[in-house]
Amino acid sequence: MSRTTIHDIAKELNTSPSTVSKALNNHPSISAATKELIKTTAVNLNYRQNRLASSLRSGRTNIIGIMIPSSDIGFFGGVVHGIEKIARSNGYNILLFQSNETGEYEVEGIETLLQTSVDGIIASIAKDTPNLDHFFDVKKRKVPLVLFDRVKDELNSPSVVVDDYKGAFMATEHLIQQGYMNIAHISGPQHIKIFNDRLCGYVDALKMNNLPVNDDLIQYGRNSIESGKFSAERLLGRSKDMDAIFAVEDFTALGALQYLKQAGVKMPEKMGMIGFGNESFSPYVTPSLSTIDQQPARMGEEAFTLFLEAMAKKANGSQNGEVEVAEEEPKKIVLDPVLIVRESSIRTPQG
Amino acid sequence: MSRTTIHDIAKELNTSPSTVSKALNNHPSISAATKELIKTTAVNLNYRQNRLASSLRSGRTNIIGIMIPSSDIGFFGGVVHGIEKIARSNGYNILLFQSNETGEYEVEGIETLLQTSVDGIIASIAKDTPNLDHFFDVKKRKVPLVLFDRVKDELNSPSVVVDDYKGAFMATEHLIQQGYMNIAHISGPQHIKIFNDRLCGYVDALKMNNLPVNDDLIQYGRNSIESGKFSAERLLGRSKDMDAIFAVEDFTALGALQYLKQAGVKMPEKMGMIGFGNESFSPYVTPSLSTIDQQPARMGEEAFTLFLEAMAKKANGSQNGEVEVAEEEPKKIVLDPVLIVRESSIRTPQG
Repeated sequence: MSRTTIHDIAKELNTSPSTVSKALNNHPSISAATKELIKTTAVNLNYRQNRLASSLRSGRTNIIGIMIPSSDIGFFGGVVHGIEKIARSNGYNILLFQSNETGEYEVEGIETLLQTSVDGIIASIAKDTPNLDHFFDVKKRKVPLVLFDRVKDELNSPSVVVDDYKGAFMATEHLIQQGYMNIAHISGPQHIKIFNDRLCGYVDALKMNNLPVNDDLIQYGRNSIESGKFSAERLLGRSKDMDAIFAVEDFTALGALQYLKQAGVKMPEKMGMIGFGNESFSPYVTPSLSTIDQQPARMGEEAFTLFLEAMAKKANGSQNGEVEVAEEEPKKIVLDPVLIVRESSIRTPQG
Repeated sequence: MSRTTIHDIAKELNTSPSTVSKALNNHPSISAATKELIKTTAVNLNYRQNRLASSLRSGRTNIIGIMIPSSDIGFFGGVVHGIEKIARSNGYNILLFQSNETGEYEVEGIETLLQTSVDGIIASIAKDTPNLDHFFDVKKRKVPLVLFDRVKDELNSPSVVVDDYKGAFMATEHLIQQGYMNIAHISGPQHIKIFNDRLCGYVDALKMNNLPVNDDLIQYGRNSIESGKFSAERLLGRSKDMDAIFAVEDFTALGALQYLKQAGVKMPEKMGMIGFGNESFSPYVTPSLSTIDQQPARMGEEAFTLFLEAMAKKANGSQNGEVEVAEEEPKKIVLDPVLIVRESSIRTPQG
C-alpha cells in the first residue's frame, strides 16, 4: 500500500514538505489561504496523516480515554455515542474502559489509559470506588479530566450532570397529578450523590403537594432487577395503601414491575410506576415504562466540549511557562431532565 | 504516595534488586522457591509493578484491544465481560473500541489500537466494512489478531463462533414441534456469513421436517427494531397462512412482535415467535421472547485463550530467529448454541 506523503503534496504544489507539514498542523506562520490550499490538495490526493509520527511531533495522541461504570447500562452507551460523534469531527478517537462498578477495575483502567498516553480522560465514577486517589493521580499528571453523571466535587474537575433532584421531583409530581396518593420510592446507594438527590426530589415533591412523607414507603435498594423485585415485595408487605412507585432507575423499576405483575396487581390502574434513566428496554416492557430521560447524547457532547476547553487551557498554561495560576472554579454544566410518559403511569379514569 | 519498589523487596529479603526483578518477571534463571518467596513478599509489602517500566523492558503493554460493532448489542457486552474476566486473571487490561457498524470507524479504531501499542486485538467485524485492509495491516505488523462471531476466513486468523446454522435449525425445529406449520423467516444482510448460515439452518429444518420452503415467507431485513416491524407487515401482507416467525436476531424479533401486537394478532396462540441472540430485553417483553443463546461469556473466554496461544507462538517464533514457518491452519472454535424457550413460542393447546 503506497500512501500519499507530505512530499507528494509538496511536489504537487511546488512548495516544501515542511510548509505542508506546518499547514496540516495549523502552524501560525502559514497563511490561512495557503493552509486552505494545502488541506484541499491533501484531501484530493487522499492523504492521511501518519498519526503516530504526528503525535510524536505534537506530544499529543488525539485519543481520549472514557471510563464508564458499565456498558450494560444503556445510558452510558448513549453518552459514549454523544462523545464519539463530536470527538470524531474534532479529529479525536476514543478508547473505552468499563470499571464494572468496582474500584479495583477503575484503578486498573485509569492506569491503562494513562499508560496509552491519552490526551485526556472523561469519566463517570464507579458505584463501589473506595477512594479517589487514582483520579487525583490523573490531575497530578496534568492530564485533563472531565466528569459526567457520577461526579465528585472534591476532584474539582469540570463536569456535566443532569439535574437529578429536578428529575425526581418531576417524576413524583407526575404521579401525583395522575391521582396517585401513596407514592413509594425505591432508592439507591445513598453515598452516591445522584441517588440521594433523587430521594430529596421525591420527598420535596410530596411536601410541596401537601402529601405526607411516610418512612414505610421508602425502601433502599441496590439498583438492579433483583433489588427491584425484593423492594416491591417489601413495600407491598409494609403498606396496603401504596398505589404508585417511583424507582431510582429503570432496572429497579423493571424488577418491581415484574414482581407486581406476578403478584396480580393491575398496572397502571391499581399501581402506577415510573423509573429514571430511559433505558433501552423501557418502551418495550408491558406496561411500557414511564421514566426520566437524562439526555445522554447531549451530556456526551457537553463533556467533550469541556475536555477541549481543558486542553486549550493546558496549552495556554504551558505557553505561559507553567506559571501556577490560582485554580478557578471548574465549570459545571447541569442539563434539564425530560419526563417521558408511557403506559405505566397513566391512570385510567376510575368508574 | 511513596510506593514500594523492588529495592524495598530486595532489602527485606537481603537479596539484589535484579534478582527481585527477574523473579517478578518469571525469569528462568530464578528457582521456583525463590520466585515464590519474592512474590509473597511483594504482595505483603503491597508492591505494584510500574507497568510502564515493565512494558518498556518486555516490549509488551499487557493491554489487549477489543473491537466490537456496537456496545448497544447486549451480546457483544457479554463477550467483553467474558474476555475481561479471564484477561484480568492473566494480568491483562482491555481497551474497547466500537465501530458503530461502519468501516470508517473500524479503520480509525484499528489505527488507534495499534497506535497505543496493544499486545493484540480481538475483533468482531462491522456490518458495513467495505474491505479488510485494516485487518491485514494488523497481521502484517505481527500483532496477534483473534476474531469472534463476525469472522472472515480470508483473514486466516484464529476465531471463535457459535454454530449459527445449528442454532437456526434448532429454533425452526422448535417451532415445528410446537405445531406451527407456516413458519416465516426474517433474515439479515446476506454478505455476512452468520446471517446466511441462519437462513440455511431455517431452510434445512423445514426440509428435514417435510415442510415446503416458501419464498413468500422469507423477508430480508436489516437487523433493527424498525426493520422487524416493516418485515412483519410485509410478511403478513403476503401470506394469510403464516403462523410463526423465526427472526435472525432479537431486535428484529422485538420489532415484529410489536407490530403484530398492535395489529391484534394473538401471540403465541395465533403466531409463534423466536429470535436469536438472547438480548437483555428478551425476557422482559410481553410475551417474553424465546431465542437462541450464543454463550457470549464463553465466547469471550475462548477468544482470550486463542489470543494467549497466539502470543506464545509469536514469542517462540522470535526465539527461533524469525524462521518463516509455513502458516498452519488457524484454530477455529465452534460453540454450541442453546435454545431458550419462553412464552412467545409455546403454543397453548387449541380447543
